[in-house]
Amino acid sequence: MEWIIKKKILIVGLGLIGGSYAKALTRFGYTVLAIDTDAEAIRFAKENGIIDEGATDADPKLIGEADCIIMALYPRIITDWIRDNQKYFKSGIRITDVTGIKSAVVYDIQAILRPDAEFIAAHPMAGRELSGVAYSDDRIFRDANFIVVPTDKNTPGSIEWCENLGRILGFNRVAVLSPEEHDEMIAFVSQLTHCIAVALMTCNDNEHLSEYTGDSFRDLTRIAHINEKMWSELFFMNKEPLLREMNRFIDELTQIRTLIENDDAEGLKEKMKLSTKRRERFDRK
Amino acid sequence: MEWIIKKKILIVGLGLIGGSYAKALTRFGYTVLAIDTDAEAIRFAKENGIIDEGATDADPKLIGEADCIIMALYPRIITDWIRDNQKYFKSGIRITDVTGIKSAVVYDIQAILRPDAEFIAAHPMAGRELSGVAYSDDRIFRDANFIVVPTDKNTPGSIEWCENLGRILGFNRVAVLSPEEHDEMIAFVSQLTHCIAVALMTCNDNEHLSEYTGDSFRDLTRIAHINEKMWSELFFMNKEPLLREMNRFIDELTQIRTLIENDDAEGLKEKMKLSTKRRERFDRK
Repeated sequence: MEWIIKKKILIVGLGLIGGSYAKALTRFGYTVLAIDTDAEAIRFAKENGIIDEGATDADPKLIGEADCIIMALYPRIITDWIRDNQKYFKSGIRITDVTGIKSAVVYDIQAILRPDAEFIAAHPMAGRELSGVAYSDDRIFRDANFIVVPTDKNTPGSIEWCENLGRILGFNRVAVLSPEEHDEMIAFVSQLTHCIAVALMTCNDNEHLSEYTGDSFRDLTRIAHINEKMWSELFFMNKEPLLREMNRFIDELTQIRTLIENDDAEGLKEKMKLSTKRRERFDRK
Repeated sequence: MEWIIKKKILIVGLGLIGGSYAKALTRFGYTVLAIDTDAEAIRFAKENGIIDEGATDADPKLIGEADCIIMALYPRIITDWIRDNQKYFKSGIRITDVTGIKSAVVYDIQAILRPDAEFIAAHPMAGRELSGVAYSDDRIFRDANFIVVPTDKNTPGSIEWCENLGRILGFNRVAVLSPEEHDEMIAFVSQLTHCIAVALMTCNDNEHLSEYTGDSFRDLTRIAHINEKMWSELFFMNKEPLLREMNRFIDELTQIRTLIENDDAEGLKEKMKLSTKRRERFDRK
């Protein structure tokens, strides 16, 4: 097991997720290095024992020491960062990422990557409505799923390495999906739900609603507190699957609207029974 | 304070909410009577000290003993029950209810009610995804809102009586709204959110989604486990406000869809910023 030999792991982008990776990996005994343009994030992480060493730019020495790299940047800038800095990579290095969309990222990276390096994509399906390393917390991984997203350019060894990374980070479940399967799934369970939460908050400007609301509305809008820079990138980079899922959902809600308008009690109850039956699957572990 | 004099309270309909009222009122020292057609519900509640006495039909003696009545039946049958049984009511009795819609209920009841009785509507905004007295639990009231919904037929004394009931039951906040204000608010914060949760579960039949989903999807669909009999009644009895809110939401989500389709990053970010700003109000207590 190569994970038993303690190695140096470089995290590029020390925000909420990068910081949470760092905490888990430091505790596991790895030497964790980090690069982030925010000097305060690096200072905080070093002072709090979250990382061993850090830099605010692409320091060739730090990059050259890394046995593997975790790219925890926003999706649009990952490929450029790798292109600009791969000259410093150790030969045989493995690189993974944390971004929430895959097709728009993984093929580009694999196309420009040095032949003696391997990029294996992964998506830690966890987060908080807060950002920054100061809020990082690897307990968010405990009940969450870690998805490894290989292409046909990936080797069995790197896929297994990445699955082990998910286990070391403490994820409840590690699964493997193709980039296309991943993006379709995420368009539905994550991106569509964020669009819905935003629309719920923006469609009604009654300032007094917060005084009367119950748990339902709070639950549906928890994720309406949203990082607009990251999520708009994710939406545009997964545009086709997301538009498909939005259309499907809007059609279905319009159907339910029509059942209510037409006083179709039986039709409406059938929808509710199907909903109840399907939701029960999500209660099981 | 007339609540200091311990009185007999009759609960008609001993389900989840009726049972939760009974628990709170029994603990507060009231004598709680109950009527429910389900003999097992009455037996369970008596055996567990949730009520003092109960009957499975509209027992004239039990009804005649009550100083006030809480109607915890499904909305469609409340008016008929009162019409059929008000001949047994004590003179001067106060009656309230627990239903989630108001205009379609309160005016009908007040129109047929004996002149020496008063009906004051109320909505305890609390619930669980389970039904039946066995699951009743008055802790569900602690973080919730209790809305008193008077019409111009109600007296100040009865409005105050009903506000006190909300406090005795342990609600976090007691508010007063007109039936029309209540129904518009509830169409948005409760009924629309249930429609959305159902549509999310019914629009996609991928059985494997539960294996990959994160917290967002679970949060948005918790209420998709739904009692189809009660909720379809509530939807049809509040049809116009609900259709207005559904239209408003579908229009807004379609707008967001168009921003994504047109690569309008600025427009999309503006929506997300507004959403984040408004959601912050819901985090405060």
